[in-house]
Amino acid sequence: MSAEAKVAELGLQLPAAATAGAGLYVPAVLSGNLLYVSGQVPLKDGAPIATGHLGSEIDIETGAALARQCCIQGLGIARSYLGSLDRVTRVVRVGGFVASAPGFIDHPQVVNGASQLLIDVFGDAGRHARCAVGMAELPLGVPVEVEFLFEVGV
Amino acid sequence: MSAEAKVAELGLQLPAAATAGAGLYVPAVLSGNLLYVSGQVPLKDGAPIATGHLGSEIDIETGAALARQCCIQGLGIARSYLGSLDRVTRVVRVGGFVASAPGFIDHPQVVNGASQLLIDVFGDAGRHARCAVGMAELPLGVPVEVEFLFEVGV
Amino acid sequence: MSAEAKVAELGLQLPAAATAGAGLYVPAVLSGNLLYVSGQVPLKDGAPIATGHLGSEIDIETGAALARQCCIQGLGIARSYLGSLDRVTRVVRVGGFVASAPGFIDHPQVVNGASQLLIDVFGDAGRHARCAVGMAELPLGVPVEVEFLFEVGV
Repeated sequence: MSAEAKVAELGLQLPAAATAGAGLYVPAVLSGNLLYVSGQVPLKDGAPIATGHLGSEIDIETGAALARQCCIQGLGIARSYLGSLDRVTRVVRVGGFVASAPGFIDHPQVVNGASQLLIDVFGDAGRHARCAVGMAELPLGVPVEVEFLFEVGV
Repeated sequence: MSAEAKVAELGLQLPAAATAGAGLYVPAVLSGNLLYVSGQVPLKDGAPIATGHLGSEIDIETGAALARQCCIQGLGIARSYLGSLDRVTRVVRVGGFVASAPGFIDHPQVVNGASQLLIDVFGDAGRHARCAVGMAELPLGVPVEVEFLFEVGV
Repeated sequence: MSAEAKVAELGLQLPAAATAGAGLYVPAVLSGNLLYVSGQVPLKDGAPIATGHLGSEIDIETGAALARQCCIQGLGIARSYLGSLDRVTRVVRVGGFVASAPGFIDHPQVVNGASQLLIDVFGDAGRHARCAVGMAELPLGVPVEVEFLFEVGV
């Protein structure tokens, strides 16, 4: 099943590519056949969906849902840039940044919220290299930020 | 206007490529047509220009000026490696790391100090994908570190 | 001397590629001639070799040894993926993440544990661009995580 068919089957509503928020950057840059998508923070109508740190205000299940939302935004940006997610030939790398209260060490389970959706949409081509790390703070006070690197076919 | 002409117009003094400091790494590596520039911390004569965290010792305006300085160093490295900044065809990605006291959430405004200079120098080709995140600490106690990925023409 | 000959001379025991731990990701992805290796945390038999922060429980020498262990794991993954480390034509980039207690600013010396091993194995081709930054927390409570980007020949 194609990625776009899978998005439809899952009932995902992918946003049109967001204009960048407070930052002087663009949602994505294509260089050769690599599409670099800017770090996504979970937003609704331009405002953070949640704020706080994992290990204090935010639990793992909520954090994973927020990482999934970052992924939905990243997929929306990729589709807007490429015209169709079916042009993605591989998800290459995911960078997962998790705002972490002292002692929080379950970053992988949080970032899995984004990784699972990539596998759901792209199948084996959605399996990626990854970093997951714990931050002091993130922009707007969000608990999770995720960036994406996609390989694109001609 | 070419990037080198713009650098001259802006009166920027780009340093010759720094030798790496305490780290066993090189300022930049070219692979294919991608130039990876190592994370830059704001230095003068090999010493940090400022130390401290955003949200406590360092205000946003100072932080943005330090991010701009990281960018000046990154541009100096790129020019030294390539011979001329006019060989840069696109700024692909910027990674912005901001040392953050508890509650500091304005990372985008800090990293904008680097992003604005890239747009000033390269115009639309300076618009890049970006991550901006908040760190517990940075090398030498600096408030900001920025890394760069440039696409290079033949 | 070839990289594989050097590994033998150094008596390095490179693990077979680990299956990914708690994360829904793969050890490495090859896109074009770039091999992206996932962030490695120092493990033995699937458990963290050490936990804690630099600047409190972990000293620099121990941290550097743990970064070297991350590198051994990354080299094992690259060999498993490529068949031989002799296919690596350049180490392009290293990302070094160091769990940092307040006031710890010697991240470069810690990440050098990985960088030195890359130079030992690959010679000048092992000299890489790098970021070294200080994290609030890391997965499983480890003190160091390192990711790798290798350029691969045909």
